[in-house]
Amino acid sequence: MYRFSFPAKSAFKSVLFNVYNDGVAKWSFTGGNELAGVETYHDDIKVYVYGQFNAKGTAGVVNNDALLKETSIEGKGAKSFITFTADAPDVIEFRYAISYISPEQAKQNFKDEFTGGDFAALKQAAKGAWAKVVNQIAVEGGTVAQRRSFYTALYRCNERMVNINEDGRYYSGYDKKVHETTRSFYVDDWVWDTYLALHPLRAILNPAMESDMLNSYVNMYQQSGWMPTFPVLFGDNPCMNGFHSTVMFLDDYRKGIRGFDVEKAYEGVKKNATQATMLPWKNGPKCELDDFYYVKGYFPALQKDEKETVSLVHPFEKRQAVAVTLGGSYDDWAVGQLAAELNKTDDEALFAKRATNYKNLWNDDKRMFIPKDKAGNWINIDPKFDGGLGGRDYYDENNGWTYLWQVQHDIDGLINLMGNKINFQNKLDQTFREGLDRSKYEFWAKFPDATGLVGQYSMGNEPSFHIPYLYNYAGAPWKTQKRIRFLLDVWYKDNIFGIPGDEDGGGMSAFVVFSSMGFYPITPGRPVYTIGSPVFSKVTVNLSNGKQFKMVANNCSVINKYIQSAKFNGKALNKPWFNHEQLVAGGELELEMGPKPNKNWGI
Amino acid sequence: MYRFSFPAKSAFKSVLFNVYNDGVAKWSFTGGNELAGVETYHDDIKVYVYGQFNAKGTAGVVNNDALLKETSIEGKGAKSFITFTADAPDVIEFRYAISYISPEQAKQNFKDEFTGGDFAALKQAAKGAWAKVVNQIAVEGGTVAQRRSFYTALYRCNERMVNINEDGRYYSGYDKKVHETTRSFYVDDWVWDTYLALHPLRAILNPAMESDMLNSYVNMYQQSGWMPTFPVLFGDNPCMNGFHSTVMFLDDYRKGIRGFDVEKAYEGVKKNATQATMLPWKNGPKCELDDFYYVKGYFPALQKDEKETVSLVHPFEKRQAVAVTLGGSYDDWAVGQLAAELNKTDDEALFAKRATNYKNLWNDDKRMFIPKDKAGNWINIDPKFDGGLGGRDYYDENNGWTYLWQVQHDIDGLINLMGNKINFQNKLDQTFREGLDRSKYEFWAKFPDATGLVGQYSMGNEPSFHIPYLYNYAGAPWKTQKRIRFLLDVWYKDNIFGIPGDEDGGGMSAFVVFSSMGFYPITPGRPVYTIGSPVFSKVTVNLSNGKQFKMVANNCSVINKYIQSAKFNGKALNKPWFNHEQLVAGGELELEMGPKPNKNWGI
Repeated sequence: MYRFSFPAKSAFKSVLFNVYNDGVAKWSFTGGNELAGVETYHDDIKVYVYGQFNAKGTAGVVNNDALLKETSIEGKGAKSFITFTADAPDVIEFRYAISYISPEQAKQNFKDEFTGGDFAALKQAAKGAWAKVVNQIAVEGGTVAQRRSFYTALYRCNERMVNINEDGRYYSGYDKKVHETTRSFYVDDWVWDTYLALHPLRAILNPAMESDMLNSYVNMYQQSGWMPTFPVLFGDNPCMNGFHSTVMFLDDYRKGIRGFDVEKAYEGVKKNATQATMLPWKNGPKCELDDFYYVKGYFPALQKDEKETVSLVHPFEKRQAVAVTLGGSYDDWAVGQLAAELNKTDDEALFAKRATNYKNLWNDDKRMFIPKDKAGNWINIDPKFDGGLGGRDYYDENNGWTYLWQVQHDIDGLINLMGNKINFQNKLDQTFREGLDRSKYEFWAKFPDATGLVGQYSMGNEPSFHIPYLYNYAGAPWKTQKRIRFLLDVWYKDNIFGIPGDEDGGGMSAFVVFSSMGFYPITPGRPVYTIGSPVFSKVTVNLSNGKQFKMVANNCSVINKYIQSAKFNGKALNKPWFNHEQLVAGGELELEMGPKPNKNWGI
Repeated sequence: MYRFSFPAKSAFKSVLFNVYNDGVAKWSFTGGNELAGVETYHDDIKVYVYGQFNAKGTAGVVNNDALLKETSIEGKGAKSFITFTADAPDVIEFRYAISYISPEQAKQNFKDEFTGGDFAALKQAAKGAWAKVVNQIAVEGGTVAQRRSFYTALYRCNERMVNINEDGRYYSGYDKKVHETTRSFYVDDWVWDTYLALHPLRAILNPAMESDMLNSYVNMYQQSGWMPTFPVLFGDNPCMNGFHSTVMFLDDYRKGIRGFDVEKAYEGVKKNATQATMLPWKNGPKCELDDFYYVKGYFPALQKDEKETVSLVHPFEKRQAVAVTLGGSYDDWAVGQLAAELNKTDDEALFAKRATNYKNLWNDDKRMFIPKDKAGNWINIDPKFDGGLGGRDYYDENNGWTYLWQVQHDIDGLINLMGNKINFQNKLDQTFREGLDRSKYEFWAKFPDATGLVGQYSMGNEPSFHIPYLYNYAGAPWKTQKRIRFLLDVWYKDNIFGIPGDEDGGGMSAFVVFSSMGFYPITPGRPVYTIGSPVFSKVTVNLSNGKQFKMVANNCSVINKYIQSAKFNGKALNKPWFNHEQLVAGGELELEMGPKPNKNWGI
């Protein structure tokens, strides 16, 4: 419902209708206050609209910049308008609904959605709906600024996915057909970003909705033949790289979420791992590079002077050979673990082996993950700056310093590669202080997505979220506490600087929600939360099972950011993690906070 | 005085001595706790040091990375060290003094400066000295954050210039000789940055010090034959462009500052305007481009495909033809106005004519200042993005949108070029919302100094300081109030983001001090302050003449940022400015603030 307030007694009150990017549209007015229209989106999706104004006006259309008196128009860039006289109300209201199914359904949706209330009532209802969602987590303490940042983030975590069920039917972009269903059908999920913290957050707050989402994924797989990795309205949009919906399925399954066909889901994620191309921004069957990966255990890169020979490679996105190998290792681990859950022991073993593929690109001289060519030779690169725009020849959007840490599924294995926990900790320290070796503008001209920099750490991009929590695995939880507080304080202010990078459909906000509450799902696929440093003295999460999870941080403040000691359900907790089962059982985490680190806690 | 705290009973307590950039140095230890040394800075300045430790240690030197037992060393990259045993105090203190004159003077300075007090006493004395400076302005109201930003800025305004008088003598980099004097001799002034707000601020707060600075400039002119524009320790470092020390002399003279040889000063600034090259980052006699300027009234640019023919042009800094012409017009105006003050009527007329040279580059089609070649043809450029790194072929560090406003000395003339005040105001609005037309990182790769962007407005670079105040001249003081509050709030936070660009030796901080107090010296050279929007409800400036200037802003708050009405000394003030004479007489500006603009006030 739109409300347009015109100057009092204005003689010129008009509203113009247009569609995104001047695409193909049709508009028609009837009765002086009724509009019906349809937009063709992404070439194959019809978006029907039906709406009514609160007053009668004179409709017209725009054809090649000429205003005409016709009341309907169709074609590319078609626009229409309606003009109200000075006698019409100064506040013009327009109520409308859309449908992906038909004009009739749009009208029906209009009737279903507008049941008599006025603007104020609708606003009040929306406020109530949001309050219900946002108040599911109650916090005490913290500064006003921290509370604003937290609740803004929590709000944003509820923007996607989007339920497109209309009266028991939905139009699917996955087979271009209308389906009947009794459940919600969700689209629009940016999994490369959201598998990390947003899906895990929803698994806590709204497991029934998460179940519907998983079921939607399975439906999409059944309709299209492929399990999507970045499902949007018109189908799977294979942004970024990896098959991280696999990790999402494993994580939710292990957190007890059911209500979807897990065998069918497994079939889909296994098909991705064995028959789909791993190439970034590409869908469909595997190519020679994927066969190479299955045999050799790494995705091959080109030597610096070598021309691309594989036509399927996206000309801008390139091979991202290291990023694909590391992401593939994680996804393969998840396939194997889900196989284990389903007692598919052969698959479990096969994929457990592939889960260690990341080791194939560990370069012991450079102490980084470095690309290899198809002959197994290292490519001689500067992992900080080589690989073209966004480092895409080898990495993706970020450089080797970020990809050094992309082994969430085998942190102990990564520690072993580095030699020991001290080396690992030192390397973490170095990540946060390593210089750019060049001006910031020169760096950003190459890595524009690596924003929110602290040394080489990029708070503004998802692959960095878990990095500050890795200190918990290296005997220095106090450094996790220090970093997390610093990062929240610097990069998630309640001011015009907002969010330090692409918010990615809730992906980034979920990091803020978890981190502000004091814990984080460091390895999606393992139902474990690692403990950081809460900004609040008390957090109460109202669970859908009727229980409450509580986090109490005594003496917590801007200064008192270090954990002195901890209890879980009243018993001493001497490690910086707890699990999902403990959380949903209505557990209580109690922390004693202080101004100086207790370097012995949690080690 | 340095204090080094070592771990208790540490067996390894060493201090290493090195010089900037591994330059030429000499070090020698005597008596186990005495150090004498000399560094050669900038090839021709000797910096002598003399110091003492609070304990005896074992000295050594470093020669090509080898630690040797000698107690003295000399040469390029020479380093020395001293090591204390476990029995020595855990807190090692080092007191030292430097001299630019001689080793003996360094020792004498040491004696003069350390008169018995310990570390705590010295710290207390320093605090007292700073408190005296900082508390010269008392504020009430505003947020804690605003007070922190304000006093931090005021502190920074006292870092430069630096008095290098040692016991009545100083070494001058301007003739490489030692001079005797009874006054302070000041060096290190970044005039392109500081003539705008820092010198005007000092003219209010410490006119005696400002007088000593002007006298130092005259001495430098007498010693070197040229009036400096960016005087540092070793001589004039002709950074940036323009002869803005001319404007500084005029401004101070008109504010009643005396105690320097104004005739000699005039001789120097006139010599700059008639015999020195205007080329950026170049000192010395004029070249053919300057002769061209004198005759044609603009600095000629090269056509895009034309090679540089003038060998004096700096290969990186280029001609900056528009920036030089606009800056030259302002400086020429200032020469003429100073001539008027000194009753040199011929010069007054000559330079008044040159003061309008900026008009020669006004392009009525592009509504911008656009470069012309030597034949008088326009160069066909995109003023937003052309001109190479920092736009230096035509502009400097900023693009045509910033240089559009570089006519502080003739604002009415600029309004006339634009047609009328409405056009002028619209163009100001557009400056604050004009897009980059490209990604931010692509823009910054070309204009790395144009930081703190709001549209095309760059809060992070000095040429933009006066722009938000220009609304006062175009019938919309409320927009000045709105912009200034927005800019202070966004770009001068009391947090890690600090200052939005190069602080430039107090240049930028002085903008914050003035703007937070609610007024600004929009045209240095005219002793007038234009009124913005104070962040404080009361400001008291303790003047050196024993009087107080007061600014009272009733109802001032973060929300109440708009001036509703004003009084000066109790009488209604209906224009947004007052003058220096009124200020130093102990005037009182009283504003009534409110949440909505009074668009009629001050127009």
